[in-house]
Amino acid sequence: MTQNLLQAGERIDQLYSNDVKIIQNKEVFSYSIDSVLLSRFPQIPSKGLIVDLCSGNGAVGLFVSKKTKASILEVEIQARLANMAQRSILLNNLQDQVKMVCDDLKNLLNYVPRSGVDLMLCNPPYFKSSQSSKKNISEYYLLARHEITTNLQEICQVARHTLKSNGRLAMVHRPDRFIEILDCLRANGLAPKRIQFVYPKMGKDANMLLIEAIKDGSIDGMKILPPLVVHKDNGDYTDTIKKLYFPH
Amino acid sequence: MTQNLLQAGERIDQLYSNDVKIIQNKEVFSYSIDSVLLSRFPQIPSKGLIVDLCSGNGAVGLFVSKKTKASILEVEIQARLANMAQRSILLNNLQDQVKMVCDDLKNLLNYVPRSGVDLMLCNPPYFKSSQSSKKNISEYYLLARHEITTNLQEICQVARHTLKSNGRLAMVHRPDRFIEILDCLRANGLAPKRIQFVYPKMGKDANMLLIEAIKDGSIDGMKILPPLVVHKDNGDYTDTIKKLYFPH
Repeated sequence: MTQNLLQAGERIDQLYSNDVKIIQNKEVFSYSIDSVLLSRFPQIPSKGLIVDLCSGNGAVGLFVSKKTKASILEVEIQARLANMAQRSILLNNLQDQVKMVCDDLKNLLNYVPRSGVDLMLCNPPYFKSSQSSKKNISEYYLLARHEITTNLQEICQVARHTLKSNGRLAMVHRPDRFIEILDCLRANGLAPKRIQFVYPKMGKDANMLLIEAIKDGSIDGMKILPPLVVHKDNGDYTDTIKKLYFPH
Repeated sequence: MTQNLLQAGERIDQLYSNDVKIIQNKEVFSYSIDSVLLSRFPQIPSKGLIVDLCSGNGAVGLFVSKKTKASILEVEIQARLANMAQRSILLNNLQDQVKMVCDDLKNLLNYVPRSGVDLMLCNPPYFKSSQSSKKNISEYYLLARHEITTNLQEICQVARHTLKSNGRLAMVHRPDRFIEILDCLRANGLAPKRIQFVYPKMGKDANMLLIEAIKDGSIDGMKILPPLVVHKDNGDYTDTIKKLYFPH
């Protein structure tokens, strides 16, 4: 059965810390450490409704599925990626818990009740449409990385409309857009509560941040969580990161 | 001479990393690691005018004096603390470079030209006047720690009026007031540019932050500097911190 699920150029990656298998394709889309970190960042509600926005090949929602009985809705605008995610759902036999919607996230209210979501996870495009990252990337990566089909403001707006009061949005993003992220959250009634900075190595500037905001929360009592350092000086993963990939 | 400079209950602390001696008094006011970290955080201009706001017993300005030929103005509202600072200036024979003003910081324009300051350092009261820190502290510590005689908004306003265009404000503060700090800076035309979080130990939430803002700067390109961890698991200072106190 596994073989039938794979198309040309695809492979299956397994995250050993939770036994989830994800269909990957280097040319099209592969999840990376951002998704792993995002999936273990927020407290996961034991039941209710979780949405994984900008889900790509579905990694975040699938990782989270192992920690909850909540229904999980994955939303991805790119059909090729949504198709990979759909097959990963089947591969893990999670079709009763995890659904994939291939649509613009602006239309999320067509799929979930207003103010009905307990937790929204989002690994959004990091770059403004005017910023360039790597040249010669595929259109798949272009849309996944740049704010072409969506942007921060739209994501926060969708969160505002669909999260329950006290529901949470957890996002991974880049520190150079930190202030804009804070502004955008607050403009949409989402109070930043927990922030964790991710550093590529000890002694280097942060290159990623994880942020959790609560709908209708107060802006008091924000916490800066312990630093996450990804690599040792010799380039190996730190013990903290290793545990996320290989817990045993 | 040294003995003549000391009053009852006072001692002299020497920061070995820069040979500066500071008159301390546990009952009245002693500088702590906040001041040490603040003084090594911003790039120090080689000349011009530096202001140390809320200077307490003058530690920050005195530490910084060793790295620059700039004139340094210390501003402290409490006469008892300003007096200690004044005697520390003499003790270090720095009276030609460092001046102490005992006044409300609101009056800073009486002592420096408008838009005339290159760098402003500030270790302000951390707590809102309504917040309580430790009970039974002396009035000296009460005023130094709580926003009774000044507050964040006033400090940022003074910085806006006295900093040169592209002059910088460097401040140490607490993470739970982080968003308010960002708001207050920006409301006063000060663009946050460099932020460093300080963690008491690896694996603990940040309990301090260092932030540098540029007057009239753009809000793009903010950096989150490497994490500063103060203590090892066994309670000793980490090597990074040790170097600040004992460089040899």
